[in-house]
Amino acid sequence: MAEYTLWCFAQSGNAYKVALMLNLCDADWTPRFVDYFGGETRTPAYRAVNVMGEVPVLEHRDTRLTQSGVILDYLATGLGKFAPHSAAERREVLRWLLFDNHKLTSYTATYRFLRNWVDGPEPAVMSFMEQRMKGAWAILEAHLTTRRFAIGDRPTIADLSMCGYLYWPQEIGIDMATYPAITRWLDDIRALPGWAPPYTLMPGHPLPARKG
Amino acid sequence: MAEYTLWCFAQSGNAYKVALMLNLCDADWTPRFVDYFGGETRTPAYRAVNVMGEVPVLEHRDTRLTQSGVILDYLATGLGKFAPHSAAERREVLRWLLFDNHKLTSYTATYRFLRNWVDGPEPAVMSFMEQRMKGAWAILEAHLTTRRFAIGDRPTIADLSMCGYLYWPQEIGIDMATYPAITRWLDDIRALPGWAPPYTLMPGHPLPARKG
Repeated sequence: MAEYTLWCFAQSGNAYKVALMLNLCDADWTPRFVDYFGGETRTPAYRAVNVMGEVPVLEHRDTRLTQSGVILDYLATGLGKFAPHSAAERREVLRWLLFDNHKLTSYTATYRFLRNWVDGPEPAVMSFMEQRMKGAWAILEAHLTTRRFAIGDRPTIADLSMCGYLYWPQEIGIDMATYPAITRWLDDIRALPGWAPPYTLMPGHPLPARKG
Repeated sequence: MAEYTLWCFAQSGNAYKVALMLNLCDADWTPRFVDYFGGETRTPAYRAVNVMGEVPVLEHRDTRLTQSGVILDYLATGLGKFAPHSAAERREVLRWLLFDNHKLTSYTATYRFLRNWVDGPEPAVMSFMEQRMKGAWAILEAHLTTRRFAIGDRPTIADLSMCGYLYWPQEIGIDMATYPAITRWLDDIRALPGWAPPYTLMPGHPLPARKG
Protein backbone atom coordinates (compact mmCIF):
# COMPACT_ATOMS: atom_id res chain seq x y z
CA MET A 1 0.00 0.00 0.00
CA ALA A 2 1.29 3.44 -0.92
CA GLU A 3 2.31 5.86 1.83
CA TYR A 4 0.00 8.61 0.60
CA THR A 5 -3.48 8.21 -0.89
CA LEU A 6 -4.90 11.17 -2.79
CA TRP A 7 -8.65 11.38 -3.38
CA CYS A 8 -8.85 13.11 -6.74
CA PHE A 9 -10.11 13.24 -10.30
CA ALA A 10 -8.32 14.33 -13.44
CA GLN A 11 -10.24 17.56 -14.08
CA SER A 12 -9.62 19.02 -10.60
CA GLY A 13 -6.92 21.64 -10.48
CA ASN A 14 -7.17 21.70 -6.71
CA ALA A 15 -6.33 17.98 -6.59
CA TYR A 16 -3.61 18.54 -9.20
CA LYS A 17 -1.84 20.97 -6.85
CA VAL A 18 -1.30 18.07 -4.44
CA ALA A 19 -0.66 15.41 -7.08
CA LEU A 20 2.04 17.63 -8.57
CA MET A 21 3.60 18.23 -5.16
CA LEU A 22 3.69 14.48 -4.45
CA ASN A 23 5.21 13.75 -7.84
CA LEU A 24 7.81 16.52 -7.62
CA CYS A 25 8.81 15.14 -4.21
CA ASP A 26 9.01 11.61 -5.63
CA ALA A 27 6.64 10.49 -2.86
CA ASP A 28 5.08 7.04 -2.69
CA TRP A 29 1.47 7.93 -3.56
CA THR A 30 -1.58 6.50 -5.22
CA PRO A 31 -4.75 8.16 -6.47
CA ARG A 32 -8.21 7.18 -5.20
CA PHE A 33 -10.65 8.18 -7.97
CA VAL A 34 -13.55 10.40 -6.90
CA ASP A 35 -16.50 10.30 -9.30
CA TYR A 36 -17.26 14.01 -9.11
CA PHE A 37 -19.15 14.14 -12.40
CA GLY A 38 -21.22 11.16 -11.22
CA GLY A 39 -22.22 13.03 -8.06
CA GLU A 40 -19.99 11.31 -5.49
CA THR A 41 -18.98 14.51 -3.66
CA ARG A 42 -22.63 15.32 -3.01
CA THR A 43 -23.34 12.01 -1.24
CA PRO A 44 -23.67 11.77 2.56
CA ALA A 45 -20.84 9.23 2.56
CA TYR A 46 -18.51 11.73 0.93
CA ARG A 47 -19.65 14.59 3.15
CA ALA A 48 -18.72 12.40 6.12
CA VAL A 49 -15.19 12.28 4.70
CA ASN A 50 -15.16 16.01 3.88
CA VAL A 51 -17.98 18.27 5.05
CA MET A 52 -16.83 20.78 2.41
CA GLY A 53 -17.68 18.28 -0.33
CA GLU A 54 -14.46 18.84 -2.24
CA VAL A 55 -11.33 17.15 -3.49
CA PRO A 56 -8.51 16.82 -2.70
CA VAL A 57 -8.46 14.65 0.40
CA LEU A 58 -5.10 13.24 1.47
CA GLU A 59 -4.67 10.16 3.65
CA HIS A 60 -1.31 9.58 5.31
CA ARG A 61 -1.16 6.95 8.04
CA ASP A 62 -3.75 8.03 10.65
CA THR A 63 -4.13 11.53 9.26
CA ARG A 64 -6.81 12.59 6.81
CA LEU A 65 -6.57 16.13 5.50
CA THR A 66 -8.65 18.35 3.25
CA GLN A 67 -8.06 21.73 1.55
CA SER A 68 -5.17 21.82 -0.90
CA GLY A 69 -3.41 24.62 1.00
CA VAL A 70 -3.44 22.61 4.24
CA ILE A 71 -2.19 19.52 2.46
CA LEU A 72 0.59 21.39 0.66
CA ASP A 73 1.73 22.89 3.97
CA TYR A 74 1.65 19.46 5.60
CA LEU A 75 3.65 17.86 2.80
CA ALA A 76 6.18 20.70 2.65
CA THR A 77 6.87 20.19 6.35
CA GLY A 78 6.90 16.40 6.18
CA LEU A 79 8.87 16.03 2.97
CA GLY A 80 11.09 19.08 3.46
CA LYS A 81 10.60 20.44 -0.04
CA PHE A 82 9.00 23.60 -1.47
CA ALA A 83 8.71 24.94 2.08
CA PRO A 84 9.26 28.48 3.33
CA HIS A 85 12.54 28.94 5.23
CA SER A 86 11.62 31.70 7.69
CA ALA A 87 8.63 33.29 9.39
CA ALA A 88 8.62 36.08 6.82
CA GLU A 89 8.72 33.58 3.96
CA ARG A 90 5.95 31.58 5.60
CA ARG A 91 3.76 34.68 5.64
CA GLU A 92 4.52 35.34 1.98
CA VAL A 93 3.65 31.76 1.06
CA LEU A 94 0.40 31.96 3.01
CA ARG A 95 -0.40 35.29 1.37
CA TRP A 96 -0.21 33.81 -2.12
CA LEU A 97 -2.00 30.62 -1.06
CA LEU A 98 -4.88 32.79 0.17
CA PHE A 99 -4.86 34.95 -2.96
CA ASP A 100 -4.96 31.76 -5.00
CA ASN A 101 -7.92 30.35 -3.10
CA HIS A 102 -9.83 33.61 -2.90
CA LYS A 103 -9.34 34.88 -6.42
CA LEU A 104 -7.04 33.13 -8.88
CA THR A 105 -8.32 29.57 -8.51
CA SER A 106 -11.80 30.57 -7.42
CA TYR A 107 -12.57 32.55 -10.56
CA THR A 108 -10.50 30.49 -12.99
CA ALA A 109 -11.91 27.15 -11.85
CA THR A 110 -15.49 28.39 -11.89
CA TYR A 111 -15.12 29.98 -15.32
CA ARG A 112 -13.49 26.84 -16.74
CA PHE A 113 -16.20 24.64 -15.22
CA LEU A 114 -19.01 26.70 -16.72
CA ARG A 115 -17.25 26.88 -20.08
CA ASN A 116 -16.61 23.15 -20.41
CA TRP A 117 -19.13 21.22 -18.35
CA VAL A 118 -22.31 23.24 -18.07
CA ASP A 119 -24.87 23.23 -20.87
CA GLY A 120 -25.70 26.77 -21.90
CA PRO A 121 -24.08 28.79 -19.14
CA GLU A 122 -25.57 32.27 -18.65
CA PRO A 123 -23.62 34.77 -20.78
CA ALA A 124 -23.87 37.37 -17.99
CA VAL A 125 -22.29 34.95 -15.50
CA MET A 126 -19.56 34.00 -17.97
CA SER A 127 -18.75 37.64 -18.60
CA PHE A 128 -18.69 38.46 -14.89
CA MET A 129 -16.44 35.51 -14.05
CA GLU A 130 -14.14 36.19 -17.01
CA GLN A 131 -13.63 39.76 -15.89
CA ARG A 132 -12.83 38.71 -12.32
CA MET A 133 -10.54 35.93 -13.54
CA LYS A 134 -8.59 38.33 -15.72
CA GLY A 135 -8.24 40.71 -12.79
CA ALA A 136 -6.61 37.93 -10.77
CA TRP A 137 -4.35 36.91 -13.67
CA ALA A 138 -3.24 40.54 -14.07
CA ILE A 139 -2.19 40.66 -10.42
CA LEU A 140 -0.17 37.46 -10.78
CA GLU A 141 1.34 38.70 -14.05
CA ALA A 142 2.46 41.94 -12.40
CA HIS A 143 3.94 40.03 -9.47
CA LEU A 144 5.87 37.55 -11.62
CA THR A 145 7.33 40.28 -13.79
CA THR A 146 9.80 41.15 -11.04
CA ARG A 147 10.61 37.74 -9.57
CA ARG A 148 11.08 34.20 -10.80
CA PHE A 149 8.69 32.44 -8.40
CA ALA A 150 5.93 33.57 -6.05
CA ILE A 151 8.16 34.44 -3.10
CA GLY A 152 11.56 34.77 -4.77
CA ASP A 153 14.17 32.71 -6.57
CA ARG A 154 13.03 29.20 -5.73
CA PRO A 155 9.69 27.41 -6.11
CA THR A 156 7.48 26.86 -3.06
CA ILE A 157 4.04 25.45 -2.40
CA ALA A 158 2.65 28.91 -3.28
CA ASP A 159 3.71 28.26 -6.88
CA LEU A 160 2.34 24.72 -6.89
CA SER A 161 -0.97 26.05 -5.62
CA MET A 162 -1.28 28.92 -8.08
CA CYS A 163 -0.34 26.88 -11.14
CA GLY A 164 -3.05 24.29 -10.42
CA TYR A 165 -5.55 25.47 -13.04
CA LEU A 166 -3.19 27.25 -15.40
CA TYR A 167 -1.96 24.34 -17.53
CA TRP A 168 -5.38 24.25 -19.25
CA PRO A 169 -5.29 27.45 -21.35
CA GLN A 170 -7.43 25.91 -24.09
CA GLU A 171 -10.14 24.80 -21.68
CA ILE A 172 -10.05 28.24 -20.09
CA GLY A 173 -9.99 29.94 -23.48
CA ILE A 174 -7.31 32.42 -22.52
CA ASP A 175 -4.64 33.87 -24.78
CA MET A 176 -1.34 33.12 -23.02
CA ALA A 177 0.48 35.67 -25.19
CA THR A 178 -1.17 38.30 -22.98
CA TYR A 179 0.65 36.87 -19.96
CA PRO A 180 4.38 36.52 -20.76
CA ALA A 181 5.49 36.44 -17.12
CA ILE A 182 2.95 33.76 -16.20
CA THR A 183 3.95 31.76 -19.30
CA ARG A 184 7.64 31.94 -18.36
CA TRP A 185 6.83 30.93 -14.76
CA LEU A 186 4.68 27.97 -15.87
CA ASP A 187 7.59 26.85 -18.09
CA ASP A 188 9.95 27.06 -15.10
CA ILE A 189 7.60 24.86 -13.05
CA ARG A 190 7.19 22.48 -15.99
CA ALA A 191 10.98 22.06 -16.08
CA LEU A 192 11.14 20.72 -12.51
CA PRO A 193 12.04 16.99 -12.32
CA GLY A 194 8.86 14.96 -11.85
CA TRP A 195 6.48 17.45 -13.47
CA ALA A 196 3.57 15.89 -15.34
CA PRO A 197 0.31 17.37 -16.65
CA PRO A 198 -2.95 16.88 -14.71
CA TYR A 199 -4.53 14.46 -17.17
CA THR A 200 -1.50 12.19 -16.87
CA LEU A 201 -1.19 12.29 -13.08
CA MET A 202 -4.81 11.66 -12.10
CA PRO A 203 -7.54 9.22 -13.19
CA GLY A 204 -10.79 10.07 -14.96
CA HIS A 205 -9.80 11.60 -18.28
CA PRO A 206 -11.41 11.77 -20.76
CA LEU A 207 -14.95 11.87 -19.41
CA PRO A 208 -17.41 9.36 -20.86
CA ALA A 209 -19.48 10.83 -23.70
CA ARG A 210 -22.62 12.61 -22.52
CA LYS A 211 -25.90 10.90 -23.07
CA GLY A 212 -27.96 12.64 -25.76
CA MET B 1 1.41 56.75 17.48
CA ALA B 2 -0.53 53.52 17.84
CA GLU B 3 1.36 50.23 17.74
CA TYR B 4 -0.76 48.84 14.90
CA THR B 5 -2.16 50.74 11.92
CA LEU B 6 -4.95 49.07 9.97
CA TRP B 7 -5.69 50.26 6.44
CA CYS B 8 -9.43 49.73 6.18
CA PHE B 9 -12.88 51.07 5.40
CA ALA B 10 -16.15 50.40 7.19
CA GLN B 11 -17.86 48.30 4.52
CA SER B 12 -15.00 45.77 4.21
CA GLY B 13 -15.63 42.52 6.00
CA ASN B 14 -12.08 41.46 5.25
CA ALA B 15 -10.77 44.49 7.12
CA TYR B 16 -13.32 43.89 9.87
CA LYS B 17 -11.81 40.45 10.53
CA VAL B 18 -8.59 42.19 11.57
CA ALA B 19 -10.23 45.16 13.32
CA LEU B 20 -12.24 42.74 15.41
CA MET B 21 -9.15 40.71 16.27
CA LEU B 22 -7.28 43.85 17.36
CA ASN B 23 -10.21 45.01 19.45
CA LEU B 24 -10.81 41.63 21.08
CA CYS B 25 -7.11 41.55 21.99
CA ASP B 26 -7.31 45.09 23.39
CA ALA B 27 -4.41 46.04 21.13
CA ASP B 28 -3.22 49.60 20.61
CA TRP B 29 -4.42 50.21 17.06
CA THR B 30 -5.63 52.95 14.80
CA PRO B 31 -7.47 52.82 11.47
CA ARG B 32 -6.08 54.43 8.31
CA PHE B 33 -9.08 55.10 6.05
CA VAL B 34 -8.87 53.70 2.52
CA ASP B 35 -11.21 55.41 0.07
CA TYR B 36 -12.24 52.26 -1.74
CA PHE B 37 -15.46 53.70 -3.14
CA GLY B 38 -13.47 56.71 -4.40
CA GLY B 39 -11.11 54.41 -6.29
CA GLU B 40 -8.05 54.51 -4.02
CA THR B 41 -7.30 50.77 -4.24
CA ARG B 42 -7.06 51.02 -8.03
CA THR B 43 -4.34 53.69 -7.97
CA PRO B 44 -0.68 52.90 -8.72
CA ALA B 45 0.22 54.31 -5.28
CA TYR B 46 -2.05 51.79 -3.58
CA ARG B 47 -0.89 48.94 -5.79
CA ALA B 48 2.65 49.74 -4.65
CA VAL B 49 1.45 49.14 -1.09
CA ASN B 50 -0.51 46.03 -2.04
CA VAL B 51 -0.19 44.53 -5.53
CA MET B 52 -3.43 42.67 -4.82
CA GLY B 53 -5.28 45.98 -4.56
CA GLU B 54 -7.18 45.02 -1.42
CA VAL B 55 -7.71 45.93 2.19
CA PRO B 56 -6.78 45.10 4.88
CA VAL B 57 -3.15 46.13 5.16
CA LEU B 58 -1.57 46.03 8.60
CA GLU B 59 1.48 48.03 9.63
CA HIS B 60 3.34 47.00 12.77
CA ARG B 61 6.77 48.54 13.33
CA ASP B 62 8.81 47.62 10.22
CA THR B 63 6.38 44.99 9.02
CA ARG B 64 3.64 45.60 6.47
CA LEU B 65 1.28 42.72 5.85
CA THR B 66 -1.64 42.04 3.53
CA GLN B 67 -4.29 39.29 3.31
CA SER B 68 -6.55 39.01 6.35
CA GLY B 69 -5.57 35.37 6.96
CA VAL B 70 -1.88 36.24 7.08
CA ILE B 71 -2.54 39.16 9.40
CA LEU B 72 -4.74 37.11 11.73
CA ASP B 73 -2.06 34.43 11.93
CA TYR B 74 0.60 37.08 12.65
CA LEU B 75 -1.49 38.70 15.38
CA ALA B 76 -2.45 35.39 16.99
CA THR B 77 1.23 34.54 17.29
CA GLY B 78 2.28 37.99 18.46
CA LEU B 79 -0.58 38.63 20.86
CA GLY B 80 -1.01 35.03 22.01
CA LYS B 81 -4.79 34.99 21.58
CA PHE B 82 -7.19 33.06 19.34
CA ALA B 83 -4.26 30.91 18.21
CA PRO B 84 -4.18 27.18 17.53
CA HIS B 85 -2.42 25.16 20.25
CA SER B 86 -0.99 22.25 18.26
CA ALA B 87 0.02 21.28 14.74
CA ALA B 88 -3.32 19.51 14.26
CA GLU B 89 -5.24 22.57 15.45
CA ARG B 90 -3.13 24.76 13.20
CA ARG B 91 -4.15 22.64 10.22
CA GLU B 92 -7.81 22.88 11.20
CA VAL B 93 -7.55 26.66 11.56
CA LEU B 94 -5.89 26.93 8.15
CA ARG B 95 -8.53 24.67 6.65
CA TRP B 96 -11.35 26.97 7.71
CA LEU B 97 -9.38 30.10 6.80
CA LEU B 98 -9.01 28.70 3.29
CA PHE B 99 -12.66 27.67 3.09
CA ASP B 100 -13.60 31.16 4.19
CA ASN B 101 -11.43 32.82 1.55
CA HIS B 102 -12.34 30.41 -1.24
CA LYS B 103 -16.07 30.15 -0.68
CA LEU B 104 -17.77 31.73 2.32
CA THR B 105 -16.32 35.22 2.10
CA SER B 106 -15.70 35.11 -1.64
CA TYR B 107 -19.35 34.48 -2.54
CA THR B 108 -20.93 36.40 0.35
CA ALA B 109 -18.83 39.52 -0.16
CA THR B 110 -19.39 39.55 -3.90
CA TYR B 111 -23.13 39.00 -3.57
CA ARG B 112 -23.43 41.74 -0.92
CA PHE B 113 -21.38 44.13 -3.04
CA LEU B 114 -23.55 43.60 -6.11
CA ARG B 115 -26.73 43.87 -4.06
CA ASN B 116 -25.82 47.12 -2.32
CA TRP B 117 -23.35 49.07 -4.40
CA VAL B 118 -23.85 48.17 -8.06
CA ASP B 119 -26.58 49.81 -10.09
CA GLY B 120 -28.72 47.18 -11.78
CA PRO B 121 -26.68 44.03 -11.22
CA GLU B 122 -27.36 41.24 -13.70
CA PRO B 123 -30.11 38.96 -12.31
CA ALA B 124 -28.30 35.89 -13.65
CA VAL B 125 -25.13 36.83 -11.79
CA MET B 126 -27.06 37.55 -8.60
CA SER B 127 -28.79 34.20 -8.81
CA PHE B 128 -25.54 32.36 -9.49
CA MET B 129 -23.74 34.06 -6.61
CA GLU B 130 -26.67 33.58 -4.23
CA GLN B 131 -26.72 29.86 -4.93
CA ARG B 132 -22.98 29.54 -4.34
CA MET B 133 -23.19 31.66 -1.20
CA LYS B 134 -25.95 29.51 0.23
CA GLY B 135 -23.92 26.40 -0.50
CA ALA B 136 -21.07 27.80 1.59
CA TRP B 137 -23.42 28.85 4.40
CA ALA B 138 -24.91 25.34 4.45
CA ILE B 139 -21.45 23.83 4.93
CA LEU B 140 -20.71 26.18 7.82
CA GLU B 141 -24.16 25.54 9.33
CA ALA B 142 -23.60 21.78 9.23
CA HIS B 143 -20.16 22.18 10.80
CA LEU B 144 -21.34 24.43 13.64
CA THR B 145 -24.22 22.13 14.51
CA THR B 146 -21.82 19.77 16.23
CA ARG B 147 -19.30 22.16 17.78
CA ARG B 148 -19.33 25.56 19.41
CA PHE B 149 -16.57 27.21 17.37
CA ALA B 150 -14.80 26.37 14.12
CA ILE B 151 -12.21 24.02 15.58
CA GLY B 152 -13.79 23.13 18.94
CA ASP B 153 -14.77 24.68 22.26
CA ARG B 154 -12.90 27.97 22.06
CA PRO B 155 -12.78 30.75 19.47
CA THR B 156 -9.78 31.05 17.15
CA ILE B 157 -8.82 33.23 14.22
CA ALA B 158 -10.80 30.82 12.02
CA ASP B 159 -13.98 32.11 13.67
CA LEU B 160 -12.88 35.73 13.41
CA SER B 161 -12.22 35.22 9.71
CA MET B 162 -15.48 33.45 8.90
CA CYS B 163 -17.71 35.88 10.78
CA GLY B 164 -16.30 38.87 8.89
CA TYR B 165 -19.23 39.37 6.52
CA LEU B 166 -21.97 37.70 8.55
CA TYR B 167 -23.01 40.57 10.83
CA TRP B 168 -24.72 42.22 7.84
CA PRO B 169 -27.73 39.92 7.26
CA GLN B 170 -29.90 42.80 6.05
CA GLU B 171 -27.34 43.95 3.50
CA ILE B 172 -26.94 40.35 2.37
CA GLY B 173 -30.69 39.80 2.38
CA ILE B 174 -30.47 36.41 4.04
CA ASP B 175 -32.98 34.91 6.47
CA MET B 176 -30.98 34.03 9.57
CA ALA B 177 -33.79 31.78 10.85
CA THR B 178 -32.58 29.29 8.24
CA TYR B 179 -29.21 29.13 9.98
CA PRO B 180 -29.73 28.49 13.71
CA ALA B 181 -26.22 27.15 14.32
CA ILE B 182 -24.57 30.11 12.58
CA THR B 183 -26.84 32.50 14.51
CA ARG B 184 -25.88 30.89 17.84
CA TRP B 185 -22.20 31.01 16.89
CA LEU B 186 -22.37 34.69 15.86
CA ASP B 187 -24.02 35.42 19.23
CA ASP B 188 -21.18 33.61 21.01
CA ILE B 189 -18.62 35.74 19.17
CA ARG B 190 -20.66 38.89 19.85
CA ALA B 191 -20.48 38.07 23.59
CA LEU B 192 -16.66 38.18 23.65
CA PRO B 193 -15.27 41.21 25.56
CA GLY B 194 -14.28 43.91 23.09
CA TRP B 195 -16.68 42.89 20.33
CA ALA B 196 -18.05 45.78 18.27
CA PRO B 197 -19.87 45.86 14.91
CA PRO B 198 -17.99 46.79 11.72
CA TYR B 199 -19.60 50.18 11.23
CA THR B 200 -18.49 51.17 14.73
CA LEU B 201 -14.94 49.88 14.49
CA MET B 202 -13.92 51.32 11.12
CA PRO B 203 -14.27 54.71 9.40
CA GLY B 204 -16.31 55.49 6.29
CA HIS B 205 -19.91 54.76 7.21
CA PRO B 206 -22.36 55.85 5.98
CA LEU B 207 -21.25 56.47 2.42
CA PRO B 208 -21.86 59.95 0.99
CA ALA B 209 -25.06 60.12 -1.05
CA ARG B 210 -24.58 59.17 -4.69
CA LYS B 211 -24.58 61.89 -7.25
CA GLY B 212 -27.72 61.77 -9.39
